[in-house]
Amino acid sequence: MSGYFPIYLEWLGVAVFALTGALTAARKGMDPLGFALLATVTGVGGGTLREVLLGRPATWIADPTAPAICIIVGFATFAIGRSYTPTRKGAFRMLMWADGLGLAIFAVSGAQTALLASAHPVTAIVLGALTATFGGIVRDVLAGEIPLVLRREIYVTAAALGAGVYVGLEQLGHEAALAALAGVAAGFTLRAMAIARDWSMPAYPPGA
Amino acid sequence: MSGYFPIYLEWLGVAVFALTGALTAARKGMDPLGFALLATVTGVGGGTLREVLLGRPATWIADPTAPAICIIVGFATFAIGRSYTPTRKGAFRMLMWADGLGLAIFAVSGAQTALLASAHPVTAIVLGALTATFGGIVRDVLAGEIPLVLRREIYVTAAALGAGVYVGLEQLGHEAALAALAGVAAGFTLRAMAIARDWSMPAYPPGA
Amino acid sequence: MSGYFPIYLEWLGVAVFALTGALTAARKGMDPLGFALLATVTGVGGGTLREVLLGRPATWIADPTAPAICIIVGFATFAIGRSYTPTRKGAFRMLMWADGLGLAIFAVSGAQTALLASAHPVTAIVLGALTATFGGIVRDVLAGEIPLVLRREIYVTAAALGAGVYVGLEQLGHEAALAALAGVAAGFTLRAMAIARDWSMPAYPPGA
Repeated sequence: MSGYFPIYLEWLGVAVFALTGALTAARKGMDPLGFALLATVTGVGGGTLREVLLGRPATWIADPTAPAICIIVGFATFAIGRSYTPTRKGAFRMLMWADGLGLAIFAVSGAQTALLASAHPVTAIVLGALTATFGGIVRDVLAGEIPLVLRREIYVTAAALGAGVYVGLEQLGHEAALAALAGVAAGFTLRAMAIARDWSMPAYPPGA
Repeated sequence: MSGYFPIYLEWLGVAVFALTGALTAARKGMDPLGFALLATVTGVGGGTLREVLLGRPATWIADPTAPAICIIVGFATFAIGRSYTPTRKGAFRMLMWADGLGLAIFAVSGAQTALLASAHPVTAIVLGALTATFGGIVRDVLAGEIPLVLRREIYVTAAALGAGVYVGLEQLGHEAALAALAGVAAGFTLRAMAIARDWSMPAYPPGA
Repeated sequence: MSGYFPIYLEWLGVAVFALTGALTAARKGMDPLGFALLATVTGVGGGTLREVLLGRPATWIADPTAPAICIIVGFATFAIGRSYTPTRKGAFRMLMWADGLGLAIFAVSGAQTALLASAHPVTAIVLGALTATFGGIVRDVLAGEIPLVLRREIYVTAAALGAGVYVGLEQLGHEAALAALAGVAAGFTLRAMAIARDWSMPAYPPGA
């Protein structure tokens, strides 16, 4: 995806988002192929949108590593889950944490890919936020749920912060790998605080 | 986007669709970033789909004006709305009119972009209708509502009429700017009549 | 779309998927343009996603045959349906069978297009399954229904089987047309059995 961003972090992002897809499939009582499909759509959705918006083929056309990871995660979650049987609430909590990590990773990798394609810094932040949120949006829409991104908790904010920290440090001349790790850390920390402490932004007065 | 279509009309279309996204966020009681996200997805969604279907990168990769407009509209709607506090019904009515104007503008600009890319006239009309309806569809799906486009009022019909008038006049040799304004006027007038007078097409017998 | 796959089969796939879109519009009591829109999105959605993921313009930009077929199917279904008046249940059953045939055809044509674009065999199977399921997913999401693909019946499995049989036979050196027909037959047979005999895969324990 790039010469700078640690590729194992990208695979980790794919794997954790795939896991969130599989956990959603578990909550819906789906069959093994349903697990694989939701895992794949969630895991590769964001990166695919990023490439398409940049006018390029999806990266997994040439290299099937990412969908292969997702399919394995999907089947493994089905197999392990049947014996391990987490509660629905436990599955949801795992989903939230994994989703937060994937969010932070993809926000930065999306922003970096955009910068490498000579996009404007503002565009890079927007693209980072889209890359980070799109897989989860598709996952939730397919499962017939209100997308996490629309709940009042800090979500897009965390993605935008992660992408913004990365783009800012990079533009100030810092090393790309350092800027990337700082961006991932910033995005995940904010999202983690939001999950753990139930933080939210001031919302528009409901019922107005 | 083109040498012919007045670019300020394109920005106006982006802004009014962004406003419909922000008004939807208001009705859902979302936070500021939620306003910005729904505004951006709605405002740039249609034009982005158009470029992607033509096999090109999204125009905002190189020029962030459109997402910048949307983000500003999103934040401004949140800020102003909190003091102004329109009723939910008032917000919905504003949404309908702004949506109708955006619909007419994007139908024509989508059709024109397709013609400039040497598409077949029939394709240009289809692409115009898709450009005009896609942003609103994504807005409504994300907000968990039935897309406006599926309600019985005249909606796709207005987009297709606007695109059709433009393509027809253009093919008959009329000046592009004139054809464009005629198309926007035709599409918006039909949609406005449908909103104001509650017009609808004959529908398939329900319950059949 | 290719030198091998019988193009009339591709048009048949487009037409039957368009029919499923129109039948869904009938069940929702939509107007004629709504029929045309749902028919078009369903009929060309999968093939369009396939081209976009391969980094190419949608094939119907240059050749409007596919959307033209869909629009005709949409209007014809509206016109015929009003006099013929199938029951809702009858419409749903027709939808299931037509959907199964389109699924098998698009799984193979998607996989073949990917192979022709030099994709990895695993990628070809994934792309075949996505091509086959995407149009129906968009149809169901737009209509506000839970996508067929997420119901417990064998669905993605049938698409993956069809694509897999085709890719396997092709890689083993069999003639492309034969491999394609074998893939379509395998995918449709499995899906048909699932519909007729109510087969399903073992699912994740609900309520776990």
